[in-house]
Amino acid sequence: MRLLLINPNISDSVSDLIRAEAQRTASAGTEIEVLTAPFGVAYIETRFEALIGAYAAAQLAAEHHARFDAVVVAAFGDPGLAGLREALPCPVTGLSEAAMASACLLGQRFSIVAISQRIRAWYRETVEHAGLAGRLASIRGLDEPLADIGNVQGNQGERLVALANRCVAEDGADVIVLAGAPLAGLARSLRGRLPVPVVDGVSSAVRHAESLAALQPGKATGGSFAPPPVKPHHGLPEGIARLLDRH
Amino acid sequence: MRLLLINPNISDSVSDLIRAEAQRTASAGTEIEVLTAPFGVAYIETRFEALIGAYAAAQLAAEHHARFDAVVVAAFGDPGLAGLREALPCPVTGLSEAAMASACLLGQRFSIVAISQRIRAWYRETVEHAGLAGRLASIRGLDEPLADIGNVQGNQGERLVALANRCVAEDGADVIVLAGAPLAGLARSLRGRLPVPVVDGVSSAVRHAESLAALQPGKATGGSFAPPPVKPHHGLPEGIARLLDRH
Amino acid sequence: MRLLLINPNISDSVSDLIRAEAQRTASAGTEIEVLTAPFGVAYIETRFEALIGAYAAAQLAAEHHARFDAVVVAAFGDPGLAGLREALPCPVTGLSEAAMASACLLGQRFSIVAISQRIRAWYRETVEHAGLAGRLASIRGLDEPLADIGNVQGNQGERLVALANRCVAEDGADVIVLAGAPLAGLARSLRGRLPVPVVDGVSSAVRHAESLAALQPGKATGGSFAPPPVKPHHGLPEGIARLLDRH
Amino acid sequence: MRLLLINPNISDSVSDLIRAEAQRTASAGTEIEVLTAPFGVAYIETRFEALIGAYAAAQLAAEHHARFDAVVVAAFGDPGLAGLREALPCPVTGLSEAAMASACLLGQRFSIVAISQRIRAWYRETVEHAGLAGRLASIRGLDEPLADIGNVQGNQGERLVALANRCVAEDGADVIVLAGAPLAGLARSLRGRLPVPVVDGVSSAVRHAESLAALQPGKATGGSFAPPPVKPHHGLPEGIARLLDRH
Amino acid sequence: MRLLLINPNISDSVSDLIRAEAQRTASAGTEIEVLTAPFGVAYIETRFEALIGAYAAAQLAAEHHARFDAVVVAAFGDPGLAGLREALPCPVTGLSEAAMASACLLGQRFSIVAISQRIRAWYRETVEHAGLAGRLASIRGLDEPLADIGNVQGNQGERLVALANRCVAEDGADVIVLAGAPLAGLARSLRGRLPVPVVDGVSSAVRHAESLAALQPGKATGGSFAPPPVKPHHGLPEGIARLLDRH
Amino acid sequence: MRLLLINPNISDSVSDLIRAEAQRTASAGTEIEVLTAPFGVAYIETRFEALIGAYAAAQLAAEHHARFDAVVVAAFGDPGLAGLREALPCPVTGLSEAAMASACLLGQRFSIVAISQRIRAWYRETVEHAGLAGRLASIRGLDEPLADIGNVQGNQGERLVALANRCVAEDGADVIVLAGAPLAGLARSLRGRLPVPVVDGVSSAVRHAESLAALQPGKATGGSFAPPPVKPHHGLPEGIARLLDRH
Repeated sequence: MRLLLINPNISDSVSDLIRAEAQRTASAGTEIEVLTAPFGVAYIETRFEALIGAYAAAQLAAEHHARFDAVVVAAFGDPGLAGLREALPCPVTGLSEAAMASACLLGQRFSIVAISQRIRAWYRETVEHAGLAGRLASIRGLDEPLADIGNVQGNQGERLVALANRCVAEDGADVIVLAGAPLAGLARSLRGRLPVPVVDGVSSAVRHAESLAALQPGKATGGSFAPPPVKPHHGLPEGIARLLDRH
Repeated sequence: MRLLLINPNISDSVSDLIRAEAQRTASAGTEIEVLTAPFGVAYIETRFEALIGAYAAAQLAAEHHARFDAVVVAAFGDPGLAGLREALPCPVTGLSEAAMASACLLGQRFSIVAISQRIRAWYRETVEHAGLAGRLASIRGLDEPLADIGNVQGNQGERLVALANRCVAEDGADVIVLAGAPLAGLARSLRGRLPVPVVDGVSSAVRHAESLAALQPGKATGGSFAPPPVKPHHGLPEGIARLLDRH
Repeated sequence: MRLLLINPNISDSVSDLIRAEAQRTASAGTEIEVLTAPFGVAYIETRFEALIGAYAAAQLAAEHHARFDAVVVAAFGDPGLAGLREALPCPVTGLSEAAMASACLLGQRFSIVAISQRIRAWYRETVEHAGLAGRLASIRGLDEPLADIGNVQGNQGERLVALANRCVAEDGADVIVLAGAPLAGLARSLRGRLPVPVVDGVSSAVRHAESLAALQPGKATGGSFAPPPVKPHHGLPEGIARLLDRH
Repeated sequence: MRLLLINPNISDSVSDLIRAEAQRTASAGTEIEVLTAPFGVAYIETRFEALIGAYAAAQLAAEHHARFDAVVVAAFGDPGLAGLREALPCPVTGLSEAAMASACLLGQRFSIVAISQRIRAWYRETVEHAGLAGRLASIRGLDEPLADIGNVQGNQGERLVALANRCVAEDGADVIVLAGAPLAGLARSLRGRLPVPVVDGVSSAVRHAESLAALQPGKATGGSFAPPPVKPHHGLPEGIARLLDRH
Repeated sequence: MRLLLINPNISDSVSDLIRAEAQRTASAGTEIEVLTAPFGVAYIETRFEALIGAYAAAQLAAEHHARFDAVVVAAFGDPGLAGLREALPCPVTGLSEAAMASACLLGQRFSIVAISQRIRAWYRETVEHAGLAGRLASIRGLDEPLADIGNVQGNQGERLVALANRCVAEDGADVIVLAGAPLAGLARSLRGRLPVPVVDGVSSAVRHAESLAALQPGKATGGSFAPPPVKPHHGLPEGIARLLDRH
Repeated sequence: MRLLLINPNISDSVSDLIRAEAQRTASAGTEIEVLTAPFGVAYIETRFEALIGAYAAAQLAAEHHARFDAVVVAAFGDPGLAGLREALPCPVTGLSEAAMASACLLGQRFSIVAISQRIRAWYRETVEHAGLAGRLASIRGLDEPLADIGNVQGNQGERLVALANRCVAEDGADVIVLAGAPLAGLARSLRGRLPVPVVDGVSSAVRHAESLAALQPGKATGGSFAPPPVKPHHGLPEGIARLLDRH
């Protein structure tokens, strides 16, 4: 099985974290490929940056998906995921929805621990869009500027643990979601240090993508995730144009 | 006052409808400019097409906003609106949220009448994202392929009226929203033919954009609609890059 | 265009604040008239007082509406608004729904800053009735008795600013609604002092009433905002009786 | 124990139905008094009529409550109930909330069968205001004009049974609420004819009012149902003025 | 009238508290019988313990119900209630739903004061299952291990009062629910000490069970609370088997 | 890896269906064991039957879990799941939550196709308890008595396909969940016959249980899924008693 993970940001250091955690998680026989956005920002905290990342992810996915059994949008907030689920012929998931799926299988309410204050509003909207607001205990975020997006875990590890503990003690969390590709792998290294289960977007997405590919539930030809109806377009990147015309 | 309306689709015929209705609605002294997306699809029915339209709208807005007092994303579903509200220094609104704001000032529950079946899922998500699911009576759509996106009103006018009447009689609608830029102006021509108030995205957006510009509520420097934090980026269109760097 | 603003309380000093802000906001050519309730309480903080204010507003509206293009219930909580929307032939709005409409066009979540603690429960129910609980960040109120309802802004201005800042910093507000007719005009004088957009019921209501009158969406003859069915009544004030009999 | 039931409408024939069912239901030792509104409409179907009924109910309650252990607003929709709960020193309930309380003790989802189509919107808002939308299966209403409000049961009994059966078979109702004072007593006469439990506002309100008086849970001196803060007022009926000044 | 209260826990001391409060509350002519679970735990704080208590309650109810007019599951959280409502031919209620019904007749929002921290999650889910999350102000619980489940009121009375006061002052509660059979009778002894009405599960359940028996709304033969369809079973306690076979 | 699937019903024929589909789905190296409840009913359609099944599942799980890496409650509605998640040291999931997790990774809204009309209410409550009501398009069920619970697929296959097609065409489903252990394997045999992805509880539960065991998110020692606090108990089956005492 071959999985494509798309980092919709331009940070190669984050792509390295994603790749490492994906490879540690993947089942025997699963090959992992990680692509980094050719344009965009260093990391996504806002709706405007997500809009850019969505388009970048769409371009990469349109161009490369054919070689893969499933695609993962490898940023929290899942920019572009719903659109790609319509357009691509294979299963697609994202770090947020995959981590939330894991969390919902482990407890009733989860909290999200994030890398900045600003990012919380966008994450809350992501949870609401997933219809899971009733299972959200809280979202807490670091409150300092990030000096190095590829080394948040090293610089801020203890602060992240402290935030997670407050989510359990004060907010009623049954599960902690460590959010954002820059935290890929942290759940693994925190094993046994928190009083509740901890999940991570990258490892969840790899496992669930493998499951979706294995279960073979079928691609929608009707309903709202069927491919977009064929219609005139122009000026689009070749991969996207091909995707729009192909069925 | 100067308003910029951005058609995030490539259909000039729809831009013409938008322009005509906007000019009929605008207050004395308001100047209207309508720009058409340089790339994209003929009209947006799906999440994937909305993703493309959002990026096109962002490019146009980034490049042209400086000459305007307010910006309108002139497609139902408001692709890119939330991101642009963060990034632009002036008020921004969209056809969906403007029409829903009008509808909420006229009754308790509204129905949306739309140009296709497929488009309903995306519209429902738009309503849910606005937190207005509790005020939605129903969404009904035409069930035939559209021969000519610039002439839906002419070809399908009576069917649209019939759908609206069913929304009132069967679904409990207090207000009808005629959705989609291709229906711009239809509310005006249907005056007196429906048993409840009828609103239209373009005229609502023009009025509300004027109001927001006149009320001068201030641009966010804090909260989740402050401009995105400055950070590394690359490969972006010049207007977007300038917007990200500018504050 | 002629707008009638009805203060459902007996405080002439508050009517003066309403009139001043309405006139500052009104478009060229719009005439403003403010009427004060002939019976009732000094200001509304409770459901019981709202019930009284609703009836006073209904009497004034029934008697005077014929000379106006739109009517505004000029108290937060909008006492009587839904009933008047059924009964009157012209558009009707209220300070709460108008301010919330403005807020929803400016950000995702708003907070309400109010003139007392007690008033918060009634305001929360107003937001819930509008179906907007999902967009409410918080309601905060002054916690001292009001010495002079006509001079809350002067006496309590800095406390109100402090409350608004806490709404942004602690509650996640994207927009501040300054609630209650006694705060009419404060949003204008606070321009530039808060980190998020600030809206005010009176100015919002004047602008939106003008828009509703201009858009001419039509009066309901069906649905739940059609005029009440004709039926026996007795003992009612002449204006109300005439309204019930008139169609 | 003495219970006051207030018919906020002017129909003496409906007051007779209320009185008869209340007396059939009351425990030994409970005395029932029913008062009819001195002004208002024949029956309430709309928000505007409810506004009038609320004020009429408030006047009667303010004037007469002192002789009673509990007060019942004896119209569905409970006009004025929340305000009276603040202002009166004794327990107050209404037909809607009492019937819904009974229904919620008998099943998970209830349907409301009502005397007109028009009334459904107002009833739905009543359910939503009670926070019980999640337990509402449906609201169905008669679709003919009512020839005689005091004899709906006789004229329309079979149609009401048919509506109730559809609520069970098509809408998933576990319990039927027969709504509106004009249907007082019908639940009793339908015993055994419907496949699910049936409840009635008047009998439910009498039983629950007795329970509230017996349980003696205490009158609020704090929270949002404490009496309104004392403040200037003028022009109010003597009973209401006394109530506002009394604590 | 004869009421059966089933304590689904094994604590006789708690059964004594339940019996005493039930007898103080019961109307003249009502006989009370309290049965204690023959197996289970000392008191229920978790979903797993509730699962056990539900089965114990079902066994007792199946065996003994025939002699009674109504049955009460006498533990907060109402373990087994919904199932018993299907299976038994008489009305069934539970401490949680009965207390919440009382609370909803006394104010808009209630808080629950509970005997432990752990129990709060289960109580919250109970409120949510009842569809009453919108009326819940907060749940607060004691934060010390309970030395003697039969004497929580004596040992922890002042702490419980302090928690209730915080619910009013900080959380906006209009009514306090004292939750859990170990607090049976506390509401009565706190009369006049709290600023809002206080309700108790046992006294509420006794009153409402009497009301349900008196109102005779009928037993479901259709809908989702009809008895379970007859089908093969084996290995069940005799009472439960008889109940499954009996209609 | 070793997985225990517990059929909380007494039907060996259904256990055979579960075992066959689980083995078809399991990854290489995963061993499957299926146990059938020693007491209970043939299949669960009601809350009362679920209460019995929950206790049977708890007994089996308590006795046998130690040899397994994860446990699956193999009936739709997941009787006993939340309690077992607290009490067992390993991951636990159930057919409903696993199927819903799959569905949520494949589309926005899912419909459930079920084996009877009666079962729909219980399934709806299962979805609501999972906080996923916002993603439920509809629940449709067969409307005939089931002649042979082990052969529903053979007897009713075409009717189930027709129901699924109506969920897509009329209810807006993006994904179909085939619900109930008696349908285990049907999703696999319907591949390519439905216009949207189809998921099945058994295969989803096997995959997700494997994922949870592989991800090793940790067992809760705090929060609401920590093991129940140790306290007195008596009369319990030995396995359950040991589980309660063990930590």
